[in-house]
Amino acid sequence: MHTLRVGILGATGLVGQRLVARLVDHPWFRVAAVAASERSAGQRYARATSWRLSERPPDSVAELEVRRCDPRELDDCDVVLSALDTAVARELEPRFAEAGFPVISNSSAFRQDETVPLVVPEVNADHLGLLGAPRAARAGFIVTNPNCSVTGLAVALAPLHRDFGVRRLVVSTMQALSGAGVEGPRALDVVDNVIPYIAGEEEKIELELGKILGRLDRGRVQRAEIAVSAHCHRVATLDGHLEAVSLGLERRATVEELSRSLTSFRSALAEEGLPSAQGAPIVVRDEPDRPQPRLDRDCGGGMTVVVGRIRPCNVLDFRLLVLSHNAVRGAAGGTLLNAELLAARGWLVPRRSA
Amino acid sequence: MHTLRVGILGATGLVGQRLVARLVDHPWFRVAAVAASERSAGQRYARATSWRLSERPPDSVAELEVRRCDPRELDDCDVVLSALDTAVARELEPRFAEAGFPVISNSSAFRQDETVPLVVPEVNADHLGLLGAPRAARAGFIVTNPNCSVTGLAVALAPLHRDFGVRRLVVSTMQALSGAGVEGPRALDVVDNVIPYIAGEEEKIELELGKILGRLDRGRVQRAEIAVSAHCHRVATLDGHLEAVSLGLERRATVEELSRSLTSFRSALAEEGLPSAQGAPIVVRDEPDRPQPRLDRDCGGGMTVVVGRIRPCNVLDFRLLVLSHNAVRGAAGGTLLNAELLAARGWLVPRRSA
Amino acid sequence: MHTLRVGILGATGLVGQRLVARLVDHPWFRVAAVAASERSAGQRYARATSWRLSERPPDSVAELEVRRCDPRELDDCDVVLSALDTAVARELEPRFAEAGFPVISNSSAFRQDETVPLVVPEVNADHLGLLGAPRAARAGFIVTNPNCSVTGLAVALAPLHRDFGVRRLVVSTMQALSGAGVEGPRALDVVDNVIPYIAGEEEKIELELGKILGRLDRGRVQRAEIAVSAHCHRVATLDGHLEAVSLGLERRATVEELSRSLTSFRSALAEEGLPSAQGAPIVVRDEPDRPQPRLDRDCGGGMTVVVGRIRPCNVLDFRLLVLSHNAVRGAAGGTLLNAELLAARGWLVPRRSA
Amino acid sequence: MHTLRVGILGATGLVGQRLVARLVDHPWFRVAAVAASERSAGQRYARATSWRLSERPPDSVAELEVRRCDPRELDDCDVVLSALDTAVARELEPRFAEAGFPVISNSSAFRQDETVPLVVPEVNADHLGLLGAPRAARAGFIVTNPNCSVTGLAVALAPLHRDFGVRRLVVSTMQALSGAGVEGPRALDVVDNVIPYIAGEEEKIELELGKILGRLDRGRVQRAEIAVSAHCHRVATLDGHLEAVSLGLERRATVEELSRSLTSFRSALAEEGLPSAQGAPIVVRDEPDRPQPRLDRDCGGGMTVVVGRIRPCNVLDFRLLVLSHNAVRGAAGGTLLNAELLAARGWLVPRRSA
Repeated sequence: MHTLRVGILGATGLVGQRLVARLVDHPWFRVAAVAASERSAGQRYARATSWRLSERPPDSVAELEVRRCDPRELDDCDVVLSALDTAVARELEPRFAEAGFPVISNSSAFRQDETVPLVVPEVNADHLGLLGAPRAARAGFIVTNPNCSVTGLAVALAPLHRDFGVRRLVVSTMQALSGAGVEGPRALDVVDNVIPYIAGEEEKIELELGKILGRLDRGRVQRAEIAVSAHCHRVATLDGHLEAVSLGLERRATVEELSRSLTSFRSALAEEGLPSAQGAPIVVRDEPDRPQPRLDRDCGGGMTVVVGRIRPCNVLDFRLLVLSHNAVRGAAGGTLLNAELLAARGWLVPRRSA
Repeated sequence: MHTLRVGILGATGLVGQRLVARLVDHPWFRVAAVAASERSAGQRYARATSWRLSERPPDSVAELEVRRCDPRELDDCDVVLSALDTAVARELEPRFAEAGFPVISNSSAFRQDETVPLVVPEVNADHLGLLGAPRAARAGFIVTNPNCSVTGLAVALAPLHRDFGVRRLVVSTMQALSGAGVEGPRALDVVDNVIPYIAGEEEKIELELGKILGRLDRGRVQRAEIAVSAHCHRVATLDGHLEAVSLGLERRATVEELSRSLTSFRSALAEEGLPSAQGAPIVVRDEPDRPQPRLDRDCGGGMTVVVGRIRPCNVLDFRLLVLSHNAVRGAAGGTLLNAELLAARGWLVPRRSA
Repeated sequence: MHTLRVGILGATGLVGQRLVARLVDHPWFRVAAVAASERSAGQRYARATSWRLSERPPDSVAELEVRRCDPRELDDCDVVLSALDTAVARELEPRFAEAGFPVISNSSAFRQDETVPLVVPEVNADHLGLLGAPRAARAGFIVTNPNCSVTGLAVALAPLHRDFGVRRLVVSTMQALSGAGVEGPRALDVVDNVIPYIAGEEEKIELELGKILGRLDRGRVQRAEIAVSAHCHRVATLDGHLEAVSLGLERRATVEELSRSLTSFRSALAEEGLPSAQGAPIVVRDEPDRPQPRLDRDCGGGMTVVVGRIRPCNVLDFRLLVLSHNAVRGAAGGTLLNAELLAARGWLVPRRSA
Repeated sequence: MHTLRVGILGATGLVGQRLVARLVDHPWFRVAAVAASERSAGQRYARATSWRLSERPPDSVAELEVRRCDPRELDDCDVVLSALDTAVARELEPRFAEAGFPVISNSSAFRQDETVPLVVPEVNADHLGLLGAPRAARAGFIVTNPNCSVTGLAVALAPLHRDFGVRRLVVSTMQALSGAGVEGPRALDVVDNVIPYIAGEEEKIELELGKILGRLDRGRVQRAEIAVSAHCHRVATLDGHLEAVSLGLERRATVEELSRSLTSFRSALAEEGLPSAQGAPIVVRDEPDRPQPRLDRDCGGGMTVVVGRIRPCNVLDFRLLVLSHNAVRGAAGGTLLNAELLAARGWLVPRRSA
């Protein structure tokens, strides 16, 4: 495959940094451009960025000049990955799509747009059908991945929904600080504390799950009919969203059957050879006190969803814990996996420069 | 009222320290004896105790010699407050009761014993009827308060159950470190982490709520029929258990009605003049991000339960947050309030020394 | 004494909130006005403020309308306490002084001004002499207290400098988050981390100590000749600056003599009856592992400086630890103590309104 | 080189776990035996160990049966790496040495023994001369690495001492939780706190530096004459000891010269091809706020020492910050580097089994 030239929108933020880090030595993609707000534009990437990861950015990116988020400035890119904030994304992503760019976005701006696929590759790769068929010289489009508190849940529910029919879901989240980005909560508000509110998050969980687990039918996504009730909390962890789930199923099942359904879940992706895909997207832990954010978030390089404590529920049918790395699986890694999926299926092709 | 002489069992632990601190200048009680394990016995209290509170213990207690937990050694006490660990309590509390002591316990050893009242004064003071009638020179008995993750929940549910009939409850807890006592989790396991398991805790919540909210009927407690499903987690807060609740009600209600039910909840205690009782046992906060453990746990000196974020639930009927100070309301303060209730109602009288 | 009407500049910030809280039920002062930036002006104080303390602001202040920081708007105040940020203070405090207000400031703007007393009452109350003599109807002036990392150090060094002559000082600080105010570090940068740099802080320690410990001589402060080298670090504590000190003395001493010098330190203030003054400004702890920020910062209501681990130093003469509550002793409490000192000595008088 | 069979003493503790993890796929060594206390002996390693790292132990070790720390039980090992606690090490390590084993120890038991080399390979590999010459079939011996708070300091001081003569040193440490092992401080004592005391730590720093930086002279180590004064503190970080240093030099220098001395420091090891050795043992950061424990501890896989904030000192000559990964560079990685050094220089040879 031809190496594709990637432009990163919002490259200086936390998700942008994760994208830069994950694209080092990527076999299919290379970072051709980094773009950010007016404030950063014109500076070297290393200087414009308050870098938060322990491995430094590669020199090849560190030396790039940050561009403005304008389609004309990214003309040498074949695809753009967007880590823009929602408000900005709402304005800019359509401009890139209209200019013919494939836009693979982590933002929430268009997740509920009926023409935009909201994709977790292992779960609903077929939703790309919303885009029609891939063409060699195609118009631009937008593809999104879900909110960081939704992705792990969607992966864990996928086999359970397929095998037992998930009908009701009460989920209480304990979300990591990195989910709020570089402008996240002050330490003074978080040490010895829990913040029991994340603006818009509960609504996102409730809305996005139904679309992801829905069925593509004659060019439209029929939402899965699952009642979802979310309680969202920010805790003093750096990475890894932990979620306590009670769920009600359509069909009878045992703890063992749930565990087997989760453990044996495989997607077609493995055969497609996507570099970021894990053989088994879900690992089930047997210990009574796992998963734990710090110990388990890096499972599978942060791409594996870890489930534990599967047990009966006295109110619905079962209880279990889901952990996934919000900044990897739930953001940069999820975006990149979408890009890989699109590339493997022929949606990404070298653009001719103007 | 005559000042009653109190002996504290397990006085060197976290709950014991809280009891000592709360009894400073208490109008009805004074600490006459502190007792602990063999290892501590014979030492001065100040020396035997790894004191964790910021105010130092009063000199009058600091200078006491720690005794063994033996009824003969506490013969100069009128009542014992027990902060013993469950295993030890199971063995020792009956000895004190058999020796004629009122034993007011924070331990879980006898909470499910049919003859032992499990009491939160604002909620089920009438359960003391399990003891029969108070007598001037009575035999000993045991009275307990619930687990630290249950008390706040019981207080918050009491008016809702009375007014709307609570039938189902899914609760996810984010519990503070002090709930695990001085032998609690290591810092290395808690920094940047959540421990999603507390041994026995979920079972306690599920069992204790039904008994507390039950009805005393011909000398027995008829358990309330509430299906309870708990998910328990330890987070890196020092004090204050935060609980995210979804609940299903028997009768229709609105958010405003729930809020009014909680806010207007009063118990008969106010008129009894118990020193630790708050006028309103529950405060409802309107802000979208409250209660928070650090900001709200000390409400009412740690005795007030703080509720917030009352909103509809997509699966059951309503969602809300409950916060209570686990070490005060849920432990030492709850034990002391039980002692005050018993004293006000004539169950505690000066014992004659042997 | 007539109750004095206080205006608080920067009332919505962390130090401003602490001032509001400390003025509840103050015997000499009452809050007459709260002022803040344009953004907050015109709103109710309770609404304009992101309140960070666990006790709520008193209704009498909560209901006040926030004013602009303009002398004409605080005409009904007898004195202003300033919790303004330095840059703003540099511009606004002189305006208030020129308008005839006593300005008692926590900001660093004029601490090195030769005409402005930099005062810790127990240490150098006589520096008020810089202002000349108090007059009934006087012109305005500015009095400041030191940086939050300096106050505790100044109190602890005062008796040692008097008794043994401090000549050299190496200090390494572990400073609390509240020292950085509501715009302090993000949780993401602080959890599992130490930030080894606080802009301008080392310079402040090095400059301010010499002025505070200096001698007033013919209307000028002769700086104490102490070589000071500071290493400043931000750690994940909420309140309480802990400082590890090595010091070189002019005269020989023993650990016991140092301890006695610290413990017996008394100032003339006790006799002046300042409400915020402690009998003994310094407490020395003997335990090997004290002071600790969380356990000791509230000593004396946060106004007492706690010293521990006095021991010989292999390079200079002695090592010891100093802890003081940065937001109380080092900020709001220190400002208020200065106000009390000025009131007791006749510098604050009711102003006639224009 | 023949693959050497390694036995790990104290394999279930934190340092033992790190050794197991670092020996996965090691080119020279393989884990042949894991040994621990009586309590663990006989169990599978995976079961006996409360594993704290995010990557799981390799199956080849997880399935091993834990042995007792008895030389007869490790007869199939060529060398033992000791992660034993000091008290146990004092008794057991000599037994292994007497039984003919090379004992490469992380414990403090024999660091001050005149016949035992205390080695940081980049600094004083020549101190192995204390052992005499390597022989094919030699008697056992003990080699140790320094305390976790000393190693980083020793590496950073080595070039400065060589180039400018370090004479005086005041160091204030902010040490990570993992330095205290699995039995380290409780979370309740560490959240929102600093513990300003680590038993024995200050003495170790003061003693060990002199020996490491000393000169081997006619079979004895002549200690370097450096006055060292240490202030040790435990903070709420997981890994990475940060140390604020003031130092006095024999010869004049500039900040630039210090920086160059540190940056250009190379040891002979690079040429010896030790698998754990870094090309440059020290990295100097220019940013005003680095090094930071979380961002910089993993530099060079945790083996590189990071120095920052080199600046003049008002009391001694210079100030700077040193950070090193206590559990890697300061413990398991340091022990393993010593093992590699000994192997490369012919001190480790296959033993014949009895």
